[in-house]
Amino acid sequence: VPKVVDHEGRREDIAEALLRLVERDGVERVSLRAVAAEAGWSTGVLAHYFGDKDELLTFAFERVHRNGAERAERRVAAAPSPAAAVRALLAEALPLDATRRREARLWFAYLERARTDAAMAEVVRRHYRLWSERLEAALTTAGLDGPAAHDGALELLALVDGLTVQALAAPRRLPATTQERALDASLRRLLTPGG
Amino acid sequence: VPKVVDHEGRREDIAEALLRLVERDGVERVSLRAVAAEAGWSTGVLAHYFGDKDELLTFAFERVHRNGAERAERRVAAAPSPAAAVRALLAEALPLDATRRREARLWFAYLERARTDAAMAEVVRRHYRLWSERLEAALTTAGLDGPAAHDGALELLALVDGLTVQALAAPRRLPATTQERALDASLRRLLTPGG
Repeated sequence: VPKVVDHEGRREDIAEALLRLVERDGVERVSLRAVAAEAGWSTGVLAHYFGDKDELLTFAFERVHRNGAERAERRVAAAPSPAAAVRALLAEALPLDATRRREARLWFAYLERARTDAAMAEVVRRHYRLWSERLEAALTTAGLDGPAAHDGALELLALVDGLTVQALAAPRRLPATTQERALDASLRRLLTPGG
Repeated sequence: VPKVVDHEGRREDIAEALLRLVERDGVERVSLRAVAAEAGWSTGVLAHYFGDKDELLTFAFERVHRNGAERAERRVAAAPSPAAAVRALLAEALPLDATRRREARLWFAYLERARTDAAMAEVVRRHYRLWSERLEAALTTAGLDGPAAHDGALELLALVDGLTVQALAAPRRLPATTQERALDASLRRLLTPGG
């Protein structure tokens, strides 16, 4: 079904253009017209794929989540231990390279907008729930009991989000090595009690 | 010098109106005209105090930081132990009540805007540096050595920012008690190695 493939391919291209513009200009200044120009389509063609800016933002947000989850699962599959699998899941969410920095900018721009939009807020909640459940399962595999895995997932996701927010706001204060050191120290304390 | 007091008082009133509007409508939809109307002044009078929206946002951001720091120091002064002082500093930054939720919304809205503005980004860096140094000093007083206090401050500030971001995005997932439990668990592991 080549027509469907083409349709999805176009939506991907448009989302990619949106990510570039959000990184360069900030979400506030991005318009559908600018996204169309950046993607190389007319606004008329773009309107065929996305009804408004929020619909496009939601598509891009879900795509960022899916891309990150797919990368993370590949790393989990290659991880040498359950603890390394936990680390792989979390490190994939940190803005350690240009791709993930761009994705993180879109992620937090979406959160900001979702604060005044109930439908977008529900999308945000669902994605945090998916991350939490995945991480909780990995922590259980790594040896934590149910309540410890639940609380640990919550703390680690907060740590990763906080590192990301601060790395985007002050990149020189939090280069990749510093983000990873903070993650590793927290993981070590959580997974090796008394260690 | 009543004239100066009045001037500062008006700036405070205007900043307070801005916080209410950012909470209600999101920073993107807030205009100087809307802030003037919310504060009960004309746009002409408001322009006498703030040149543009970013100048007002910066004033409000610095005010949020100062208010939080002042509240935190009062709690630190009353804390029964160095560990309780560390907790007091961090808990004051969490969105545990309506005032702090409103302040946190302004804080992260400002971060979002600062990503595409060098002057605002510098304001953000300075305020994270102030928080980090204050927290590092408190962790040293609580018994950590220099490197551990430095790394610990970075991790705890990230945890608090991450909890705040997620509590604003999904309030039901992270009520005040859950935020405080996560903070306490992380603090316990950091301050009582092997405990």
